[in-house]
Amino acid sequence: MDSKDISKAVIGRLPRYFRYLGDLKEKGTERISSKELSELMNVTASQIRQDLNNFGGFGQQGYGYNVDYLYGEIGKILGLDRPHNLIICGAGSLGTALAGNPDFINAGFRIKAMFDVDPVKIGKFLHGIEVHSNKELEDFIKENEIDIAIVAVPVNSANDLKDKLIDYGIRAIWNFSNTDLDVPDYVAVENVHLLDSLMKLSCTAIFRS
Amino acid sequence: MDSKDISKAVIGRLPRYFRYLGDLKEKGTERISSKELSELMNVTASQIRQDLNNFGGFGQQGYGYNVDYLYGEIGKILGLDRPHNLIICGAGSLGTALAGNPDFINAGFRIKAMFDVDPVKIGKFLHGIEVHSNKELEDFIKENEIDIAIVAVPVNSANDLKDKLIDYGIRAIWNFSNTDLDVPDYVAVENVHLLDSLMKLSCTAIFRS
Repeated sequence: MDSKDISKAVIGRLPRYFRYLGDLKEKGTERISSKELSELMNVTASQIRQDLNNFGGFGQQGYGYNVDYLYGEIGKILGLDRPHNLIICGAGSLGTALAGNPDFINAGFRIKAMFDVDPVKIGKFLHGIEVHSNKELEDFIKENEIDIAIVAVPVNSANDLKDKLIDYGIRAIWNFSNTDLDVPDYVAVENVHLLDSLMKLSCTAIFRS
Repeated sequence: MDSKDISKAVIGRLPRYFRYLGDLKEKGTERISSKELSELMNVTASQIRQDLNNFGGFGQQGYGYNVDYLYGEIGKILGLDRPHNLIICGAGSLGTALAGNPDFINAGFRIKAMFDVDPVKIGKFLHGIEVHSNKELEDFIKENEIDIAIVAVPVNSANDLKDKLIDYGIRAIWNFSNTDLDVPDYVAVENVHLLDSLMKLSCTAIFRS
């Protein structure tokens, strides 16, 4: 099938399948039925069959899914069969924490550099990654085949930065600034709005009590 | 109305309304129509009217919404009219970054303590917050009216920790460990699966290119 036909909603669910299949693989599980997977993941079996049918022929009637194979195929769809080069814009405490996250490296996401405007930070190494001046952004992105930019800067500079990143060729932005970034259709943005998430949690807990 | 009738989906959208209304308030905007708000937020005007009608009487035909009033009312529904006490479990780089985030404090979320098992970290102050031993968890939670626990520990200890937190009375868990936590109905969990989010971004970008 043409991978472009896969819906945004399905793409959004793939990492979770990948995570559960990785756990099963680690435990030595060789195959799993859609029913078992549905109980584990707390989604309906028909949802699972429908999602995985997007990629054709993974499951066999009466046999279930081959965990290892399915894990590998979903990994390929997620693009994890090749490495990705990232930069982190903003060497504050969140940017630094992201730089030190081993999960990203293990999944093939290589953080190549950090960028900041603060002269005190520029030239330092954080978790082994050098902090560069924002002035070097354009050259660095072009010379190092950067796929993804992490935006972890204060809200008031996030939109200016985003415009520059797109100008310099970035087509995927992972946004941690607490504002929505307006981008053209050809740029992918994934927002991690931490304060929104915390408010949602707090509100949900209040309504349950 | 009974606030318990508000759907999970609406609760999930409230923080974003709150964020946009806060921005409008800051810019001095006094009122806004559902049409204007819909263009700004990139959702349909009917969705906005439907969501906000849950709380009754905020909008007036031909006048629009009073920004200041609506901001205040949504804040109340989100429980932001009173402070919340948080603890952070896991004094690694992510836990530390969360401890230093001024957005949470400004919204009334008070981080009262951090917890870790590492003797090197225990007793230290990170962003002014003391790191305690996990052994003190139970007493601290009970004595300090802790509402929310942030789980920022390695995957393999997340579920054990979650069980303890619930035992000690925690009813809201903000989970940053890259695994789903299984909790009873009376406990609210909000997951921030960073690696899932990064994979989704990367995959979306691949499909668009």
